[in-house]
Amino acid sequence: MTEQNPLIVFTPSGKRGRFPVGTPVLQAARSLGVDIDSVCGGRAICGRCQISIGEGEFAKHGITSAVAHVSGVTKVEERYDRIRGLPAGRRLSCQTQIQGDLVIDVPPESQVHKQVVRKEADTRVIALDPATKLYFIEVEEPDMHNPSSDLERVYNALRTQWSLDNVSCDLSIIAELQKALRKGEWKITCAIYSRAPGGGNRLSAIWPGFHDKTFGLAIDVGSTTIAAHLTNLSTGEVAASAGLMNPQIRFGEDLMSRVSYVMMNPGGEKEMTSAIRAALQQLAEEVAKQAQVPVTDILEVVLVGNPVMHHLFLGIDPTELGGAPFALATGLPLTFPAREMEFRLNPGAWAYVLPCIAGHVGADAAAVVLSEAPHEQDEYMLCVDVGTNAEIVLGSRARLLACSSPTGPAFEGAQISSGQRAAPGAIERIRINPETLEPRYKVIGSDKWSDEDGFEEEISSTGVTGICGSGIIEAIAEMYLAGIINQDGLVDGAMAERSSRIEPYKRTFNYVIRQPRVDGNEPLIRITQNDVRAIQMAKAALYAGVRLLMDKLNIDEVSKIRLAGAFGSHIDMKYAMVLGLIPDCDLSRVQSAGNAAGTGARIALLNKKARDEIESVVRRIEKIETAVEPKFQQHFVEAMALPHKTADFANLKKALTLPPIKTVVMADDEGGERRRRRRG
Amino acid sequence: MTEQNPLIVFTPSGKRGRFPVGTPVLQAARSLGVDIDSVCGGRAICGRCQISIGEGEFAKHGITSAVAHVSGVTKVEERYDRIRGLPAGRRLSCQTQIQGDLVIDVPPESQVHKQVVRKEADTRVIALDPATKLYFIEVEEPDMHNPSSDLERVYNALRTQWSLDNVSCDLSIIAELQKALRKGEWKITCAIYSRAPGGGNRLSAIWPGFHDKTFGLAIDVGSTTIAAHLTNLSTGEVAASAGLMNPQIRFGEDLMSRVSYVMMNPGGEKEMTSAIRAALQQLAEEVAKQAQVPVTDILEVVLVGNPVMHHLFLGIDPTELGGAPFALATGLPLTFPAREMEFRLNPGAWAYVLPCIAGHVGADAAAVVLSEAPHEQDEYMLCVDVGTNAEIVLGSRARLLACSSPTGPAFEGAQISSGQRAAPGAIERIRINPETLEPRYKVIGSDKWSDEDGFEEEISSTGVTGICGSGIIEAIAEMYLAGIINQDGLVDGAMAERSSRIEPYKRTFNYVIRQPRVDGNEPLIRITQNDVRAIQMAKAALYAGVRLLMDKLNIDEVSKIRLAGAFGSHIDMKYAMVLGLIPDCDLSRVQSAGNAAGTGARIALLNKKARDEIESVVRRIEKIETAVEPKFQQHFVEAMALPHKTADFANLKKALTLPPIKTVVMADDEGGERRRRRRG
Repeated sequence: MTEQNPLIVFTPSGKRGRFPVGTPVLQAARSLGVDIDSVCGGRAICGRCQISIGEGEFAKHGITSAVAHVSGVTKVEERYDRIRGLPAGRRLSCQTQIQGDLVIDVPPESQVHKQVVRKEADTRVIALDPATKLYFIEVEEPDMHNPSSDLERVYNALRTQWSLDNVSCDLSIIAELQKALRKGEWKITCAIYSRAPGGGNRLSAIWPGFHDKTFGLAIDVGSTTIAAHLTNLSTGEVAASAGLMNPQIRFGEDLMSRVSYVMMNPGGEKEMTSAIRAALQQLAEEVAKQAQVPVTDILEVVLVGNPVMHHLFLGIDPTELGGAPFALATGLPLTFPAREMEFRLNPGAWAYVLPCIAGHVGADAAAVVLSEAPHEQDEYMLCVDVGTNAEIVLGSRARLLACSSPTGPAFEGAQISSGQRAAPGAIERIRINPETLEPRYKVIGSDKWSDEDGFEEEISSTGVTGICGSGIIEAIAEMYLAGIINQDGLVDGAMAERSSRIEPYKRTFNYVIRQPRVDGNEPLIRITQNDVRAIQMAKAALYAGVRLLMDKLNIDEVSKIRLAGAFGSHIDMKYAMVLGLIPDCDLSRVQSAGNAAGTGARIALLNKKARDEIESVVRRIEKIETAVEPKFQQHFVEAMALPHKTADFANLKKALTLPPIKTVVMADDEGGERRRRRRG
Repeated sequence: MTEQNPLIVFTPSGKRGRFPVGTPVLQAARSLGVDIDSVCGGRAICGRCQISIGEGEFAKHGITSAVAHVSGVTKVEERYDRIRGLPAGRRLSCQTQIQGDLVIDVPPESQVHKQVVRKEADTRVIALDPATKLYFIEVEEPDMHNPSSDLERVYNALRTQWSLDNVSCDLSIIAELQKALRKGEWKITCAIYSRAPGGGNRLSAIWPGFHDKTFGLAIDVGSTTIAAHLTNLSTGEVAASAGLMNPQIRFGEDLMSRVSYVMMNPGGEKEMTSAIRAALQQLAEEVAKQAQVPVTDILEVVLVGNPVMHHLFLGIDPTELGGAPFALATGLPLTFPAREMEFRLNPGAWAYVLPCIAGHVGADAAAVVLSEAPHEQDEYMLCVDVGTNAEIVLGSRARLLACSSPTGPAFEGAQISSGQRAAPGAIERIRINPETLEPRYKVIGSDKWSDEDGFEEEISSTGVTGICGSGIIEAIAEMYLAGIINQDGLVDGAMAERSSRIEPYKRTFNYVIRQPRVDGNEPLIRITQNDVRAIQMAKAALYAGVRLLMDKLNIDEVSKIRLAGAFGSHIDMKYAMVLGLIPDCDLSRVQSAGNAAGTGARIALLNKKARDEIESVVRRIEKIETAVEPKFQQHFVEAMALPHKTADFANLKKALTLPPIKTVVMADDEGGERRRRRRG
């Protein structure tokens, strides 16, 4: 009678049921829907189905017997322990039979949908549920009395042993099949990809015998750098990471110059596509080598990138993105065999490219959304990814908007007289004494401030070579706070009387941060009027884009801000707010999102439902084209001014509502000077 | 009021309905489910929707008005007529509006599912319903106020203009898309493939503007020759055909020697795959050139072939087919991008390979089934495709069985002393005077018999070079009928007294058909004891296979016989029956099926439901492996004897039930002779 069957309780799920004596624990778990992993299907090979027999919890679960009733350790478990090691107290649930009432604990690493915690401070937890999964099968041998093909028997094994139906596969798999089956003595491991176009299950790879390792690559293709993370699809762990300069830099430093290259050199997109694809393959091989796995264990690639990179790595001419109406060839999510992008990984590897949001808001922005989840917020969250264009997403659970804003490359240190990339020798922090106007600064490669003892010795190998993006932001904010520049961004020549660091230059003034050392080849490090102007334009563009979306949502404040990318990681949020890069927000709720695009790619790699999620969110996002919004121009002009933001944040809004400047200053120093003065 | 709307009757369907004045006829037809074709979707471009306005049929259809009420010929119809020509009395139904009661005739060529009649004598009619169809669409232009990607707008147009959903496409299409849309001024023609793995609609090709031509290739890859038919997917017509010797012949004349080549030369299958694929590409280009269409208009390929060819063109090592248990890598129907087989047609072209039935009964046999349709017969039909193996299918609507039988290449003239392929100079018909034992014969290349005046002149250019397969069958049957060989197949040496044509040879006798001409280089044409033996073995194998299936069905007669392939086309059915190649059957119901495998491939190309049909039939077919059936051996031995089949068919069965020969004669002449004699 069922009443007399032992009672089994699984923790942490709390699922319970009665099973006849002799039932394997794995089978009991499955029939209750308890989430226990297995690749080998109960053959004591994979070791994924480990459990602990609970102790002292019987009363709590209403189990009357105080004695754990399980079968003894089997020979195959002993063998597994000898070869692969079984932690103390652990059993293989496929080998453990129920003998009496039991409390069974399923440890996190034995759960199918293990949680992958991304980073310490993060509240967003990802359940491991990749599109590619492994299944070990035993295939019937061919029988002349009942003839059928090897592939049919493989499909049959997948159906009967794993309930997998509607399976199809590529010719390349079929060509390998017979050798694999015979080498594995009619046991093979199959990788099944469950998210191919049209649906169904694709047999994407096979290995003779038992195979336990599958990896995926999450790649963020940036205009400047490409970053790849090799991720174990069974554990969610990052096995190796590597980055590479985007080789397309030789075709143009920024995005638009690369589009121009194509326009000027018909067929140039093919060169760029080849360059980027070669780099992607190189990265894949590099991370595989680091992690000591063959590239053929890489079964998936997830790619994100801004629209121009997206088009180029897909082999699409980006010319249309170079002019109005900025039409993407496609912004839809794409799933295709990775070999179509010339990847040489496992021949059956699949690629997934996240959707683009709009013509200038790419798959990288979609990945930031997936990582930061503004669509799950009750309050308004602003996500900004700053590059040559700022990709801006603002909203909440109720409504999400996106736009891009042409910030130009100033925030990255480009087109700034002493600007440079973040590298040893670059000034990254700076403070200016408002009394003496003397600067003190920190340089990448040293922990000391420039006024500390031993600073010069520490930096002697590199010298001070320039200012990186975060340094420029701080320099200009500090110049403003010290009164060296005014709200209009004009360097005050009258200050030259107070300090020789204010030096005349053509008809304007520079602020000199550092003179070259007598003995070195260092350049003169300074901020020119033009530099201030470039940063003003960049920050005005960024702010205007954000402000436009706030208008659409009819809000004046946002609750959370996430700054993604390298810029977001290095900038000091206070200074971003002093300069008015970002709108009013409690400073404690302004955070760097790190490489959120890369994180989003990794989430999409590890969880197939996350792909559905971001696809559905992107469809919902309202796309705003700043170029056709008259208010954008108005916000841009208004945002050129430098607001002063100190402890008294209330002044900020006042500062933001200065009388509009009538003429945008775009010309050379002298002309710009003239026109600006007209306004003053 | 609806009552007062005009009544419209469509012929030949008889569908009728009332529609408001001003309704386009095409629209009315669609709403009634009347089958009218259209690629352009009602834009007067494609001309596929032509109709005739019926006359004098009003009363018959209950229409009261005697006057045809239609709108006048429009400017766009006039333009269509001027440019592409409109037959007299025809209108474009998309341009013709209903003004009053009408009888409208839809001519066959305007129907979507046009019937394609295969050959005159054939009762099986195929409805045109290819997996690839064309759709002309007008795509919205990009709009900065409502940004979306070009591909999204294409999908949207397919949805709104053609109700096509769940569309996906390859990277290669996306890369072409923007140029095509702009070149076509936002009008493009899309090819949609509706039978991709997993389901859904695949956008397989695009053309700027209107494009009306799509073609498919039906290819039968035989061991000896490869035949390709380029077929227009809109009309079902064969646009061009071509054949080529299978280049694999250099790796071995027959199938098993090619398998041996692979066994002896590891990697040899790759050479053979390359050779066959190059030949397939060459054929594709040849037929395209013949038909004067670009190869990029080829959007589909359907392939059939015996299992070894099937594996080799798919890139699968056929080694396993060389020995028991003869396991196919796959026998499942396959659908994949044609480029995976290195086809260079339209880059988005799809390939379909019919299922194999069993280890030695290939996709070519499945195609024969699709062509001859034994599964639709109420009576038992036997289909035989004779090659190096005979592929045999027997059954009816209720039950279908298949097996293969190792006939060897004798029926093709190989391993016969004077044997040769069917080519000018080969004897194809022969009669022997039972009194004089003198032969008369016909040679390929001449209509005259050898005893007619002028025969020698007609054949002087080639001479008589050998005997082809059908000639050998007739020669041996005639020798038997003339008493030169007895029921055991022994050439009767005593006959040498009656005619010098019976000449001793080692310990046996030959029958000499023709001495070399004094002035020529002709060979001596004769039939040796060994030749008789080879044909006996081949026919015994064929008959034994058929007999085995008859046993399984518990029948002694079949109602219809179809002999497929070149052999079936050339053989005289009477002689096949005299020799006992085939079982008892009314001779008028024994027919050649011509190139039934090629026909089956064409059916699968033209009608996607035919693919479902043959897939389902093949799953149902009971596969019999002759090698494990003890009765096969018994039937084989019994069938070695020569039955005599004249007008009195009743004797046949008696002849078939001779006492069994104990030893199968497989050795050289002398040994064979000895052993046979032991039995006599």
